[in-house]
Amino acid sequence: MSDDSLKESADRVGERMMARIASLYPICRSITGNGVRETLRRIGEEIPLKLHEVPTGTKVFDWEVPREWNIRDAWIKTPDGRKIARFREHNLHVLNYSVPIHEKMDLEKLRPHLFTLPEHPDWIPYKTSYYRDNWGFCLSHNEYLSLPEGEYEVYIDSSLEPGSLTYGELLIPGESEREVLLSCHVCHPSLANDNLSGIALMTELGKWLREQPRRYSYRLLFIPGTIGSITWLARNEEKTERIEHGLVVTCVGDPGAFTYKKSRRGNAFIDRAVLHLLRQRGEPFNEIDFYPYGYDERQYCSPGFNLPVGSLSRSSHGQYPEYHTSADNLDLVDAGSLVASLALYREVVEIIESNTVYVSLNPKCEPQLGKRGLYNQIGGPSGSRVNEMALLWVLNLADGEHDLLDMAERSGHPHEEIRRAAEALEAAELLRRVS
Amino acid sequence: MSDDSLKESADRVGERMMARIASLYPICRSITGNGVRETLRRIGEEIPLKLHEVPTGTKVFDWEVPREWNIRDAWIKTPDGRKIARFREHNLHVLNYSVPIHEKMDLEKLRPHLFTLPEHPDWIPYKTSYYRDNWGFCLSHNEYLSLPEGEYEVYIDSSLEPGSLTYGELLIPGESEREVLLSCHVCHPSLANDNLSGIALMTELGKWLREQPRRYSYRLLFIPGTIGSITWLARNEEKTERIEHGLVVTCVGDPGAFTYKKSRRGNAFIDRAVLHLLRQRGEPFNEIDFYPYGYDERQYCSPGFNLPVGSLSRSSHGQYPEYHTSADNLDLVDAGSLVASLALYREVVEIIESNTVYVSLNPKCEPQLGKRGLYNQIGGPSGSRVNEMALLWVLNLADGEHDLLDMAERSGHPHEEIRRAAEALEAAELLRRVS
Amino acid sequence: MSDDSLKESADRVGERMMARIASLYPICRSITGNGVRETLRRIGEEIPLKLHEVPTGTKVFDWEVPREWNIRDAWIKTPDGRKIARFREHNLHVLNYSVPIHEKMDLEKLRPHLFTLPEHPDWIPYKTSYYRDNWGFCLSHNEYLSLPEGEYEVYIDSSLEPGSLTYGELLIPGESEREVLLSCHVCHPSLANDNLSGIALMTELGKWLREQPRRYSYRLLFIPGTIGSITWLARNEEKTERIEHGLVVTCVGDPGAFTYKKSRRGNAFIDRAVLHLLRQRGEPFNEIDFYPYGYDERQYCSPGFNLPVGSLSRSSHGQYPEYHTSADNLDLVDAGSLVASLALYREVVEIIESNTVYVSLNPKCEPQLGKRGLYNQIGGPSGSRVNEMALLWVLNLADGEHDLLDMAERSGHPHEEIRRAAEALEAAELLRRVS
Repeated sequence: MSDDSLKESADRVGERMMARIASLYPICRSITGNGVRETLRRIGEEIPLKLHEVPTGTKVFDWEVPREWNIRDAWIKTPDGRKIARFREHNLHVLNYSVPIHEKMDLEKLRPHLFTLPEHPDWIPYKTSYYRDNWGFCLSHNEYLSLPEGEYEVYIDSSLEPGSLTYGELLIPGESEREVLLSCHVCHPSLANDNLSGIALMTELGKWLREQPRRYSYRLLFIPGTIGSITWLARNEEKTERIEHGLVVTCVGDPGAFTYKKSRRGNAFIDRAVLHLLRQRGEPFNEIDFYPYGYDERQYCSPGFNLPVGSLSRSSHGQYPEYHTSADNLDLVDAGSLVASLALYREVVEIIESNTVYVSLNPKCEPQLGKRGLYNQIGGPSGSRVNEMALLWVLNLADGEHDLLDMAERSGHPHEEIRRAAEALEAAELLRRVS
Repeated sequence: MSDDSLKESADRVGERMMARIASLYPICRSITGNGVRETLRRIGEEIPLKLHEVPTGTKVFDWEVPREWNIRDAWIKTPDGRKIARFREHNLHVLNYSVPIHEKMDLEKLRPHLFTLPEHPDWIPYKTSYYRDNWGFCLSHNEYLSLPEGEYEVYIDSSLEPGSLTYGELLIPGESEREVLLSCHVCHPSLANDNLSGIALMTELGKWLREQPRRYSYRLLFIPGTIGSITWLARNEEKTERIEHGLVVTCVGDPGAFTYKKSRRGNAFIDRAVLHLLRQRGEPFNEIDFYPYGYDERQYCSPGFNLPVGSLSRSSHGQYPEYHTSADNLDLVDAGSLVASLALYREVVEIIESNTVYVSLNPKCEPQLGKRGLYNQIGGPSGSRVNEMALLWVLNLADGEHDLLDMAERSGHPHEEIRRAAEALEAAELLRRVS
Repeated sequence: MSDDSLKESADRVGERMMARIASLYPICRSITGNGVRETLRRIGEEIPLKLHEVPTGTKVFDWEVPREWNIRDAWIKTPDGRKIARFREHNLHVLNYSVPIHEKMDLEKLRPHLFTLPEHPDWIPYKTSYYRDNWGFCLSHNEYLSLPEGEYEVYIDSSLEPGSLTYGELLIPGESEREVLLSCHVCHPSLANDNLSGIALMTELGKWLREQPRRYSYRLLFIPGTIGSITWLARNEEKTERIEHGLVVTCVGDPGAFTYKKSRRGNAFIDRAVLHLLRQRGEPFNEIDFYPYGYDERQYCSPGFNLPVGSLSRSSHGQYPEYHTSADNLDLVDAGSLVASLALYREVVEIIESNTVYVSLNPKCEPQLGKRGLYNQIGGPSGSRVNEMALLWVLNLADGEHDLLDMAERSGHPHEEIRRAAEALEAAELLRRVS
């Protein structure tokens, strides 16, 4: 696998991902509407994303595509005439998918429509009501506590009308039709780590993948959460059998430890590959068994599909205090964390691409490595080089029943070291690939 | 499962079990004889126990039913004319199954027939000699140490004659002929926890079971230890194939932590069900692998049967200091412990009865729970309710390969919560039972 | 298994092994040559070893038998006329397999041919160059540091010529042709623990095995490391299928804790048997997964053979500081450690020899042990004897699917106790051996 883009400085790659996040941050996205459309259009300037529009009312398994939501403005005018909870100041202020309203009411009637976070009184929560008509505002708990009695004017200039659901798709073809699925959600408004970091990383990864030689085809989905993956699965059911490995990409920009949530299968190749890399890094990480909640892995891992799709993130779903609040902002993410996340995703791709089953052509006793220049010449193996151990492991396990990942797991050597050893042995005509 | 008797106060149930123990405590039971007969007669006043009499000499596998033992009186007269080790004072004083004797002898000749517990010098041990003719007395070590030299008069007014072995059996039929076996031994004389607690609990459980709707049939055996279960198995060999789950019930009245001894199979459904409940309780408990000693699970789990029978107790066989001594008396057991033990046995029954394999009728992606009123409506799942997680787990694992216990184990939710979720989903026509 | 030699005092056996080591210590062995030949000749005085000579150039799998190496003398004369690194003082001074040389040169040209151990400045390292023509000297780092500039005279009176590779083999036939392989390397010069301890123990074990009744045949190989096992395997490929168990014997004379390196299979009978014994000893030991380095298990466990061969040692390959240095001398080994190692090897043999699958002839319920004199008669099993538990375990697991080692592992009883219980039950006609 050539690696031109690694020549590019990590700093530049990090800055580019940060710039992408900053550019997309102000847009008010939802599961439908112009916010998603604009987001995908901008990604499409970097990678040749195909946009799909699926009309309102389309049946997708047990669901149907909802009306399209768009919003222009929203605010509350207090009894003393101040405008608060202004959408134009922060798009989290409006309950996502709020129906339009323009009414006056007293505080008692308003209260059920106000959402706050008492445990973080300065933060605005992120709330949605996609599938039940409702309206509401999110605000800081401190502001909420300061509201006086009196008459309030409530204004939401939104529309909820027949339209379509938009998602972006990019198939990067490889030698084979077997696919690797990469999926991120694009439905969150101004939230930086939870969804923008995933969008930024997956865009970068897409650019890199297009430049690599590829055995696998890579399918990148930029979709609204839940309804988006359901829609894609319903429209592409026959393609799911090609998916051999997959990852849901999100929350990859904060400085927290890596978290891997396993696929429902629990020991799929993708699970073992990611966990091998995390263990080799030697830093703390979180390994989480599959549970039927979180992001779109819920749909990919539903029993009727049971795809080998895990989720590789840093701080994970619901596990960091800023999750689904205004504090998940540009300060929470940083270029270094994004770059390290991208590097890890690339390493996963490299394991997937390079994994091979070998058979030794000299299975009886060790072949003589010395005469092939593969072995330390002055004997007395009191201090053996790691490289040689990788050679010996590969030879010992090259019985046609172990792939490189098996060898890496059993030996404790990094997959890359095992792969290099295998390639050296193959070059020396000591190994043969099993098709 | 209706639960009328739970309306009854736990206090009353506990008092009733304690009263049963107190009433049966003075009776001198053994593996045969009128003590067992009288015990079973009294239980028969509460549940319709069928009494079986199996004649002395009946061959039961490698064994034969022994002569029947009955005893009226026993004592030792000391050189100074005091009567000690009086049977009428405590029936543990006589070696159980002692042959009759009336002789005078000096202390040296008497000594080999005296049994004491030097490590607990005030307690009387419980000793038996069922299969080798012998006589003897059990007494406190302190009394033993005070015995003067001189002539002793030894008197045991017992009989060991052809008769029969008695056991009690109650089959509570259910929808199916598949059976749950519950077995307790009834051969111990005045010992409260080791066997009377089991008798009292199983009687109460039998009353409750008769009032429940039942998929399974329940077979309750009140039998003398070892020879009783061997006798039942020999006479009912063809019925053993119906037994799908079973528990040996004993030592359930003391305040010690619960102990579960697994069946020989080690991972039978009964093993997993009991251990699931014990883990869910969140209190310390003992999990013990099967070993071929203890109570009648030894016979049920012999290799020719290998039945899925475990043993659920509190302090267990040989593991508490009062075990097989006069200190295993009414002070050792209490109503609260008995009630908690009964509740746990009922929960085991509920898992057995309600366990089901489901198939999702919407296996591809999640069904939309919101439109069916099964789901929290205001999104932003930052604090999800347990109930919803149980719904999602059931849906995710309803692939026809997982029963409710599998789901409970994998999810960490209590079986009852999983069952309720499954019932709600079934009512919403999202699940179908697999026959 | 009769055990005459155990009547012999352990002291005498220990002294004999120590004497054997002391006698062989001064000989300069290598992978070929007169040192190995003389070593095998002496072992042949104790056990009827058959010596094989395999000519230089013989193809053995990927290798070929090298030229034979012999050496008579070697030294370096310093500028001030002192002879250092004298072969006749310590045979480690010469790089093993050095080509002959007699030259004068300055220190700069000499240096690349000098090997030392800076971390142990008083020790002479052990170095070899079997497969690349080279010459060299090993010396203490302190001596190395004191070398003045000036002209040195270098002298190695060795020969590297067509000849043969020598190995010793002893097949001790048993009732069956199934074999146990015992293999030690004989190629190390004056090193006491790493190879002489193995030679001494295996010689003693061979003497003992010849006196025992044997179900298995035992094949003892005294071979040069790597090339020796490769040569034997290449010439005896068809015999490898008979090998059911095997151990590589080395480093058994030092006082370190036992170490067991498992076979490549990881759960072969030999692995389980050795680990059972080590656990039963109740002392710390090291359990090591197979890795493709170390001694001749590398060849026996190559993927084309994958024989069930582990390695049982004390301090193990490369894990003790004296490894492959002049400090692995007679002070490092002691009679007590050798005797304990020998005892453990004998116990392994006893497990292999006695292991049997039994079927209970009374599989339904327990047989009545009391009437057969196998059981404690006075009941009240509050303190059960271990022996009886072993009886009950054997009866419970004698279902034709568990051998004695399974029973020992599951019960926690020593294999020997389980075996005695099984023999008692067999004598009582309660068990039958499965052929």
